[in-house]
Amino acid sequence: MKIMNKGIIRYIIGISMMIYGGFMLIPYIVSLIYGEAQGVYFLNIGAASFTVGAIIAYCKKYDNNNMFSKEGLFIVAICWIIFSLIGALPFYLSGEIPDYIDALFEICSGFTTTGATILPVVENLSKCMLFWRCFSIWLGGMGILVFIMAILPLAGGQHNMHLMKAESTGPMVGKLVPKLKNTASLLYTSYFLLTILEFVFLLIGKMSVFDALTLSFSTIGTGGFTNANAGIGVYSNYIQNVIAIFMVLGGTNFSLYFYVVAKKFKDILHLEEVFWYIGILAVSTLFVSVNVLGGFASYSDSLHHSFFQVSSIMTSTGFTTVDYDLWPEFSKTILVIVMCIGACAGSTGGGFKVIRVLVLTKHALNSMSKVLHPRNVKTVLLGGKRIEDKTLASIGSYLFLYICIFILSVLIISLDGFDFFTNFSSVAATFNNTGPGFNLVGPTMNYANFSHLSKVVLVIDMLAGRLEIFPILVLFSPSFWTKR
Amino acid sequence: MKIMNKGIIRYIIGISMMIYGGFMLIPYIVSLIYGEAQGVYFLNIGAASFTVGAIIAYCKKYDNNNMFSKEGLFIVAICWIIFSLIGALPFYLSGEIPDYIDALFEICSGFTTTGATILPVVENLSKCMLFWRCFSIWLGGMGILVFIMAILPLAGGQHNMHLMKAESTGPMVGKLVPKLKNTASLLYTSYFLLTILEFVFLLIGKMSVFDALTLSFSTIGTGGFTNANAGIGVYSNYIQNVIAIFMVLGGTNFSLYFYVVAKKFKDILHLEEVFWYIGILAVSTLFVSVNVLGGFASYSDSLHHSFFQVSSIMTSTGFTTVDYDLWPEFSKTILVIVMCIGACAGSTGGGFKVIRVLVLTKHALNSMSKVLHPRNVKTVLLGGKRIEDKTLASIGSYLFLYICIFILSVLIISLDGFDFFTNFSSVAATFNNTGPGFNLVGPTMNYANFSHLSKVVLVIDMLAGRLEIFPILVLFSPSFWTKR
Repeated sequence: MKIMNKGIIRYIIGISMMIYGGFMLIPYIVSLIYGEAQGVYFLNIGAASFTVGAIIAYCKKYDNNNMFSKEGLFIVAICWIIFSLIGALPFYLSGEIPDYIDALFEICSGFTTTGATILPVVENLSKCMLFWRCFSIWLGGMGILVFIMAILPLAGGQHNMHLMKAESTGPMVGKLVPKLKNTASLLYTSYFLLTILEFVFLLIGKMSVFDALTLSFSTIGTGGFTNANAGIGVYSNYIQNVIAIFMVLGGTNFSLYFYVVAKKFKDILHLEEVFWYIGILAVSTLFVSVNVLGGFASYSDSLHHSFFQVSSIMTSTGFTTVDYDLWPEFSKTILVIVMCIGACAGSTGGGFKVIRVLVLTKHALNSMSKVLHPRNVKTVLLGGKRIEDKTLASIGSYLFLYICIFILSVLIISLDGFDFFTNFSSVAATFNNTGPGFNLVGPTMNYANFSHLSKVVLVIDMLAGRLEIFPILVLFSPSFWTKR
Repeated sequence: MKIMNKGIIRYIIGISMMIYGGFMLIPYIVSLIYGEAQGVYFLNIGAASFTVGAIIAYCKKYDNNNMFSKEGLFIVAICWIIFSLIGALPFYLSGEIPDYIDALFEICSGFTTTGATILPVVENLSKCMLFWRCFSIWLGGMGILVFIMAILPLAGGQHNMHLMKAESTGPMVGKLVPKLKNTASLLYTSYFLLTILEFVFLLIGKMSVFDALTLSFSTIGTGGFTNANAGIGVYSNYIQNVIAIFMVLGGTNFSLYFYVVAKKFKDILHLEEVFWYIGILAVSTLFVSVNVLGGFASYSDSLHHSFFQVSSIMTSTGFTTVDYDLWPEFSKTILVIVMCIGACAGSTGGGFKVIRVLVLTKHALNSMSKVLHPRNVKTVLLGGKRIEDKTLASIGSYLFLYICIFILSVLIISLDGFDFFTNFSSVAATFNNTGPGFNLVGPTMNYANFSHLSKVVLVIDMLAGRLEIFPILVLFSPSFWTKR
C-alpha cells in the first residue's frame, strides 16, 4: 500500500487557499460600495489565506503528479473544511456573529448550499456580511474546487477527474466532451448564464441590485439565504415565479443545458432523471395544492404557493413564501419526502438525488419481475445502458450509509431534548442541504437553540450531504490514517 | 410464460383453511372451561372454515405438483389474508369488537406478531377472546403455513421450500439438515420447548395458568398482547426478568438452538448475526439505562427496566413495564432505532433484521476500503462465506422497498392529521411488528383513533412486515395478474 502523495495534496490545498483568499476581495469591494468598516476583515483574512496558501503551495516542490481517489477525497474534504473555518472568521471577528460555532454553522450552511441559519434577525447583518453569505452559496454550488482545477494550469489530467468525482453530486461522473476541462468549462458557462439571467429577470421585477444579485446567487446555488427574515413572501408574484423557475433550473442536471446548447436533442431523451425530477415535482405540487386549498383564497393562489414551496424544498433551496409549518400534516409529509429525495445529480441541489431513487426503483421492479418470471431475466437499464450489479450494490450501500448518518445524527442531537420532528427535520434539512425544517427549525424559526455539539453534528451533516458522504466519512475512517 | 398452477394453489389453500378451522377449536375449549357462551363463534366459524376448505381442496383434483416461487408467494399472501379475515369474525360477530375493521386490525396484529391493539380496555374481552388474541400470535410466530406443510403428506419436496422462503424472515433460507421437512421439525421442537419452558417459569413465579399460557404464546411469538391494560408492570421483577429473557430468546435466530442441540458449537461461531444482535441489545440497554437514571431509585432499577424495554422493542414484542413515552428524547430515539433494526432472521421477531444491517455494514466498509485501497480488493464475507454482488444488490433493494413502503404509509395516514411522531412511530411499530409506538400510539394509548383507511394501511404494513414485503407487494403488482 502506497502512502499518500503529500506533495500534490499540499500544492493543491495551498493554491486553493490562495484563490479562496482572492474571492474574499469581492465582499470587501461590496463593503467599500456601502461604506462599511467591517469589510476590512475580508481584506485581512483574504490576504492571510492567500499568504498561508502560498507558503503551503511553494515552500516545498512536489516530486510527482500522481493522484488517486484517496488523495482526491482527502483534498476535497480538507479544503471544504478549511474554507468553512476561514469563511466563518469575518462573521466572528467583526462581532456580527459573536459565537464562533454559530459563525461556522452559518458559513458552512452557505458553502454547502444549505441555507440553514442561526440568525434570529437576518437584517441585523451588514451588507458585506449578507453578501458573503449568499456568495458562499454560489461558490459552493459551483463546486469551488473543480472550478479552481478547471482554471488551474496543472500538468496531467487525472487530478480533475478524482476531484470532480469527490466533489460532484450523483453516483456517476461522466465526461460530456472528450476533455474533462472542457466539460467543466461548459458546465460553468451554464452556471454563469443562469445566474446572470435570473439577475436580469429580478431587476425587471424592480428588485434592488443588491437583492437581485444575492438572491440570484442564493437561487442558482440552491442555497436559500435571504437578506431579511420575511423571506420571499414580501416580493411580487412575478418575482416569486422567477425564483421558483430558477430554483427548478438550478436543481436540474446541468448536462441538460449542455445538450440543449450543443443541440444534442437525442441525448436529452436519455436524461431519464430529469423527467422523473419534473414528474415528482409536478405530482407533489398537485397533491399539496389540493391539500392546502382551504388556506388560500383561490386554487391559483394555492397552486402558486404549493409550486414555490415544493420546488424550494425539493431543489434543496429552502426559500419560503408562506409558513408551510402551518400546513396540514399530509402536505408537510410530502415536503419531508421531497426534501429527502432532493434534486438531480450533476446539479447544485442536495438530497439523496433523483437518479438514485430512479435506479433503485428500477432495480426493485426488476427484482420483483425476477421472482415472478424467473426464466425471463431482464437487466436494469438507465438511459439505454445496462447498470451492473456492482453499481446497484454500491447505490444500495450509499442508501444504507445515508440512513446510518441520518439516524446517528438524530440520535446525537436528541440529547438536546427537543421533540422528534424537530430533530428529524433538522437533520433532514441539513443533511439534504435544504435549510429550514419543521417545528423548532421551521421556516419562521432558526437553529440558534441547539447546543454546540448539535451544531457541529449538523455542520458535519451539511458537509457530508454536499460532498455525498464519502470524502467526510473517509476522514473518520481509521484505515485512512494508518499506513500499511 | 407459464400461468400459475391453480390446482395446487387451490389444494394448499383448502387444506390450510381446514387445519386453521381445527385450530379454532382450541379457543372453543377455553370457552368451555370458563363457561363462556361466546365460544360458540369459534366452533361455528372453525367448522365453516373447515367445510369451505374441504370443498376448495377436494372439489377438483389437481393435475400436477409443480410449484414455483410465484405460487409460493401467492399462497402465503392469500392464506395470511384469509386467516386474518376469518380470525376477525369471532371478535366481530360476538360484538366484543363491534367494528369489523377494528377486529381485523386486532387479529392481524396477532397473526403478524405485532401486538398493536385498538382496544381501549383490554380486560373487557372474555377469556376465550383474550386467548384467541395471544394464540394467534403463537400461530403466526411459528409460520403457520410452513407448519402445515411440515405435517402435510404432500408428494414432492419443492413446495415447502417455496413456501418457507416466502414466509420466513431474513434474506437467506438454508437447510440445516438435508431434508427440509426435518429442518422444520427441528425448529418447531425448539419453538414448542421454549414455550413450555417459559410457561413453567411463569408458573413458578405464581402467575395464573391462563396468564402464564397466553403470555408465553405472546412472548415466544414476540407479539406482545397482554390480558390487561397495565401490561407487564404489575408483575414481580422475577416474572419481568423471565419474560425479558424469553423475548430475547424468541428474537434469536432459531438455528442457534439447532446447533446447540446438535452440539455443533463450531457452527455457532458462524452465526455472526446473533453476536451482533446481542451486541446491539447490550449497547442500547447501557445507553438507555444511563439516560433514564434520573427517573429511577437506583441504577439496578434503571438497568432492569431499560433491559426489559430495549429487549421488548428490539425483538418486536412490545411488552411494557413502564411508560417509555415519558423517557428522555435520546432514549426514545434509541428505541425507534432498535425497533427498525429488529430481531434476527429466522426468528419470530420483526423489523429490518440484524442480518441485513450486518451485511450492509460490511458492504459499506468494503466500499470505503475499496476507494482507499483500490488495488487491495476484498470481498464481503458472512459466516466465512463470500456474499455475491447480486445478493448485496438485492439486500440494498430490500432496504429501498422497506423505505418506500414506510414513507408511503406515513404519507397516507398523515391524512388523519395526527402529529409526525405519532404517524412515523405507528408505521414503525406496525411495519416492524412491534406494537406500541410513541405519542398517540404510545404504550398507554392504542390505535383506535385512526380512520378506517389508516387502519387498513397499517394492517397491510403488518402483513408486509411479517412476510418481508415480497408476497404482499406481488399481490399489488400488475404483472402478477396479467398473462403473458
